[in-house]
Amino acid sequence: MRALTWDGTSVQVEERDPPRLGPGMALVHVAVAGICNTDLELVRGYMGFRGTLGHEFVGTVSEGPAAWVGRRVVGEINFSCGACGWCARGLGRHCPTRRVMGILDADGAFADVVAVPVANLHAVPDEIPDDAAVFTEPLAAAFEILEQVHVTSATDCLVLGDGKLGLLVAQVLHQAGTRVRLVGRHAAKLAIARRRGIEAVEESAWGRTPADLVVEATGSATGLHAAIAATRPRGTLVLKSTIADTVALNCAPLVINEISVVGSRCGTFPPAVRALAGGGIDVTSLISARRPLTDGVDALHLAAQPGVLKVLLEP
Amino acid sequence: MRALTWDGTSVQVEERDPPRLGPGMALVHVAVAGICNTDLELVRGYMGFRGTLGHEFVGTVSEGPAAWVGRRVVGEINFSCGACGWCARGLGRHCPTRRVMGILDADGAFADVVAVPVANLHAVPDEIPDDAAVFTEPLAAAFEILEQVHVTSATDCLVLGDGKLGLLVAQVLHQAGTRVRLVGRHAAKLAIARRRGIEAVEESAWGRTPADLVVEATGSATGLHAAIAATRPRGTLVLKSTIADTVALNCAPLVINEISVVGSRCGTFPPAVRALAGGGIDVTSLISARRPLTDGVDALHLAAQPGVLKVLLEP
Repeated sequence: MRALTWDGTSVQVEERDPPRLGPGMALVHVAVAGICNTDLELVRGYMGFRGTLGHEFVGTVSEGPAAWVGRRVVGEINFSCGACGWCARGLGRHCPTRRVMGILDADGAFADVVAVPVANLHAVPDEIPDDAAVFTEPLAAAFEILEQVHVTSATDCLVLGDGKLGLLVAQVLHQAGTRVRLVGRHAAKLAIARRRGIEAVEESAWGRTPADLVVEATGSATGLHAAIAATRPRGTLVLKSTIADTVALNCAPLVINEISVVGSRCGTFPPAVRALAGGGIDVTSLISARRPLTDGVDALHLAAQPGVLKVLLEP
Repeated sequence: MRALTWDGTSVQVEERDPPRLGPGMALVHVAVAGICNTDLELVRGYMGFRGTLGHEFVGTVSEGPAAWVGRRVVGEINFSCGACGWCARGLGRHCPTRRVMGILDADGAFADVVAVPVANLHAVPDEIPDDAAVFTEPLAAAFEILEQVHVTSATDCLVLGDGKLGLLVAQVLHQAGTRVRLVGRHAAKLAIARRRGIEAVEESAWGRTPADLVVEATGSATGLHAAIAATRPRGTLVLKSTIADTVALNCAPLVINEISVVGSRCGTFPPAVRALAGGGIDVTSLISARRPLTDGVDALHLAAQPGVLKVLLEP
């Protein structure tokens, strides 16, 4: 099969043996996969990953338990032990012995076939097209904020960054009934949020009024500093994007203003699947381009360009 | 009157006019004042403060409302407007127009007399001697953690730093029924915690097992890095000491492990006064030395020495 791989030096599309069916696993024929910023960081050395990239996908089970074969699925990306205390609490994404699809010790979904634990599969309802279902993983990451922070209609929210994750987070918070302001630099991206009734502001026109809940979704040190300054005393700052580099940080404002900084990573899939089935979140407007898997190297370059949102890969 | 002042260049004991009684204020004759690490940071330039230092004190009201004159008091250090939303919520310590005694636009307590808003005064019960009452402010700062984070008997707590604040925080968490481990570098300081039944470990013997709740009370960048590494996934890291300098921080572990970092500053006085009256917290073991106010400059130097805990000043 073909796979888009990273060997620590370069990215290439290469011919690989398809994964073999192990116990508790299923093989999924990938229909569509999505390129995430994490993929771009991985090929800059983040996590020291080697292997097939990709962790956002929708596909059809080709091998595995009979009840699953032929079903259209998405799959949670943390492959956990199922036996430890974290797994028992439904938090297998923190399992200390986890592997993570396309990120840590497990091959990813930029391939014809990907191996996924059966326990990680979620059936995709018919009303969700592939182009929406492929957003399940990043949308689940956006929903993770609601698992960690209690928001109410009185919560004044600010999302910094109009990239893929920022647009999903702004929509999730908006759907949860909060007042959301999205700040970004790209008129076309801000327009996507505005069409959903979200107040979306160009950075140059942003008044910098502090908010109760600030979500850092720029992935930049500048964004992090702006986010700290824009968090009200006793407010909450959610770090939604991994800033791979070390940041020079002045911690005094965190202490003086008693800010809570909440790191937030992957989320569980059910709320995202339900939201996509309900049609309340616009994900397909986030698709900037689609490429065949064989053009995967170019597709990664394209995804790194400013102004580009989601680039999809089709095996 | 005499006052220990900082003019941006040097610290000196000088003769100053005593404060005049303004509306809503009381004048307090200082009996004992305590030197805090913040005072040491202020004379290194923190906050750009100029004026009389000192924000930990106990004394007797000499001028003000008749009901207060002659009473032994401690005083909250944030002088707030009393009218804004923060003040209405009992969080005047975040009032945006606040002054802070000996820290921000208000003269402090290293003087014969200090001016304090009447609203900030708390009567000291007879059973609390001056040497214990002078710890009300830092003990309130330790109790602030319980205002911000819900701890239970199942919360595995780790306090990094066996300085004044670390010893108070460890005792407060211990009294709250949690399991506390205190890590430090000074046998004599750790012994104070051990006498209260707290597991206290030399840093060199510390196994670095991660904890649910970690309190950074070293005030150092090294301590902050160790604290992040020692916080369990989904755990909480409380920044209790202000690290005045900028720290090079890798934020990825916060996101990957979904850690909450909670900045924590001043606390409200009543829980601290109640704890001191009950005798459950050992504060007097933290007194390393006492000096007359006239020796204030030397006292500040002494307080900065390794191994020294609280240095008291007596006008």
